[in-house]
Amino acid sequence: MQYSPIRRFNPLAKAAEDKGMRVYKLNIGQPDIVTPECFIGAIRNYDQKVIAYQQSQGDANLVQSIIAYTERDYGVSYDEQDIIITMGASEALTMAFSVLLNKGDQVMIPEPFYTNYTTFIALAGGSVAPVPTSPADGYRYADRELLERHLTDATKAIACISPGNPTGNVLTDDDKEVIAAFAEDHDLWIIADEAYREYVFDGRKPSTFAQVEHIRDRLIVVDSVSKRFSACGARIGYAASTNREFMEGMLKIAQGRLCVPTVDQVGAAALFRLPASYYDEVRAEYEERRDAAYEEIMRIPGVVCRKPGGAFYMSMELPVEDAEDFLLYMLTEFNEENETVMFAPASGFYATPGSGRSEIRIAYVLNPADMRRACWLIRTGLERYKAR
Amino acid sequence: MQYSPIRRFNPLAKAAEDKGMRVYKLNIGQPDIVTPECFIGAIRNYDQKVIAYQQSQGDANLVQSIIAYTERDYGVSYDEQDIIITMGASEALTMAFSVLLNKGDQVMIPEPFYTNYTTFIALAGGSVAPVPTSPADGYRYADRELLERHLTDATKAIACISPGNPTGNVLTDDDKEVIAAFAEDHDLWIIADEAYREYVFDGRKPSTFAQVEHIRDRLIVVDSVSKRFSACGARIGYAASTNREFMEGMLKIAQGRLCVPTVDQVGAAALFRLPASYYDEVRAEYEERRDAAYEEIMRIPGVVCRKPGGAFYMSMELPVEDAEDFLLYMLTEFNEENETVMFAPASGFYATPGSGRSEIRIAYVLNPADMRRACWLIRTGLERYKAR
Repeated sequence: MQYSPIRRFNPLAKAAEDKGMRVYKLNIGQPDIVTPECFIGAIRNYDQKVIAYQQSQGDANLVQSIIAYTERDYGVSYDEQDIIITMGASEALTMAFSVLLNKGDQVMIPEPFYTNYTTFIALAGGSVAPVPTSPADGYRYADRELLERHLTDATKAIACISPGNPTGNVLTDDDKEVIAAFAEDHDLWIIADEAYREYVFDGRKPSTFAQVEHIRDRLIVVDSVSKRFSACGARIGYAASTNREFMEGMLKIAQGRLCVPTVDQVGAAALFRLPASYYDEVRAEYEERRDAAYEEIMRIPGVVCRKPGGAFYMSMELPVEDAEDFLLYMLTEFNEENETVMFAPASGFYATPGSGRSEIRIAYVLNPADMRRACWLIRTGLERYKAR
Repeated sequence: MQYSPIRRFNPLAKAAEDKGMRVYKLNIGQPDIVTPECFIGAIRNYDQKVIAYQQSQGDANLVQSIIAYTERDYGVSYDEQDIIITMGASEALTMAFSVLLNKGDQVMIPEPFYTNYTTFIALAGGSVAPVPTSPADGYRYADRELLERHLTDATKAIACISPGNPTGNVLTDDDKEVIAAFAEDHDLWIIADEAYREYVFDGRKPSTFAQVEHIRDRLIVVDSVSKRFSACGARIGYAASTNREFMEGMLKIAQGRLCVPTVDQVGAAALFRLPASYYDEVRAEYEERRDAAYEEIMRIPGVVCRKPGGAFYMSMELPVEDAEDFLLYMLTEFNEENETVMFAPASGFYATPGSGRSEIRIAYVLNPADMRRACWLIRTGLERYKAR
């Protein structure tokens, strides 16, 4: 197990800040969007005298608010037993892999992928079977032939993060049918990580994998309030599945850790009751940021980047041999009017050794003007880095 | 993995309540003591616009408040790197065993013990090596000969819950020296679960294993706000160790789950700043409850019970063959003026198959009058159960 590749450059960034530098932080998915006031408002109104254990499955009121939201916005129905509240999507994934995997089982994941999956799966005794994609192709993976090529006897599940982290790749309805048919033919579970569900651009319609009716019994949707409501510190997520045997396994594990914090669930229930217009506003804001960032990024000579369709990440290949070395330069040597920029080197998002060394991920979590400035700093930094 | 033995009778209790029964719940350590107002007060005053990720290690302010509390009340010093904030003691234990254990390693635990340890240790690939104790002996285990007898080549650590759950057994200073010497001689880690640290009675002085200076490098203290501050729903705990290599391993795992909820840490920091007089008040309340419960319990003919020295649990042997069957009777057949009682059958607290079948645990989490009534209901229920 290694230190998080997203977080391990933090000490260098802090050292730069201590020297008086401003560091634009595009490395971590921590949005600057204000958390809706109803979150802390609901907690402020919480008047129970004892902050008691909540049910292991989660606050019934929060579960109901998630059911109502999914029905309202996606026309998808869940029963109460189909939902279990977790400490962020991270815990939902850790628990789900523990239920699904036996020692030696493999989980197919298109790479690059959100790094912590390696840990979640390893803790359950399994391993990642990466499905390679390329920046030139916009990191697409919903290709039956590609998937078949990476199937083994040990494959137990396929995990899809859509909209994608770190790629921003969004599965279309047709893509989902490709993956669904593949999973059905090989009797695989589908883990659909939809933490960024609402953040799709260019007129795409937000969707959930649960809308594909015929695979619902092999589907586990994982979700979170972190990105949707800019409430990363609430640590509220959930897993949803209509497969009862799976959910029973989840409940057993959930009982082992007793429950998820009580007041955060009170706040989260209020978040899921926000009107659909909330998503429209935030989506428009992210789309503007993406457009600003993409325009600036495409001015970098030699960059390979396809415009991402969703989430708030953009991955790209830079004309460097080693993006970590470039980041090191940006944090320790580069200085443009006391400003520099931090991003995530993409090699940490790859399971295949040596892959992604020239790639980086940026999170467009700053306002459009800051995004432009930060991307300009990457371009300027690259020029100076290569001219050394 | 099985359903929690503490929680799995909940549906029956709920069914009884739905029929209009009052069920005295002595089965779970959920106190009715009011959570100090400063917890929700601090959260109400939290004014950050974005509920952002906290550091993986935990809120620096909370860490400082724990350091100050341990120094003030126990004269024990910790550095900032010695503490990591976790989702309750449960997560601290899960993470600690993941760092310490390799596949096949064993952890010695005096039995009966808090059930979830089995899961925490199994998730890390290890197994529990139970050290048997007996109700007649007050569940004592700090006996060098007894410990030696249960040591194997696979033993990697010994876990001590003191004050004990489910037994209420409290380690004396001499007891700790016995365990410390045993651990040193066999190069074992000591996991000291001190969630009930302040709740010791009959003039005993609260203590921490960290006061035993010579084993600090092999000691991991696990703690929580849940019981100490009647804040079970805050899910804030921590692990403390001066062993840097161990703490580095903890931090790596902590980064995988990002962080613990932000606002609960704000509230918890306020809790640890409460004056020492807070503990005196709550301790007196629990002592009164224990005295009330113990007096009533000792009126049960054939009961085997030693007065527990701490925590808020009492374990005992009842004159029944199968305490689960007796509980089933209490929840489905027994009715005394529309009241009944729920407790935890102790067999679930044993790793040794068949052990503890006649034993139960009660949590004295209700006020003295309710405790007396609930214990009287156990006695009356027993009479009728045996007379059937």
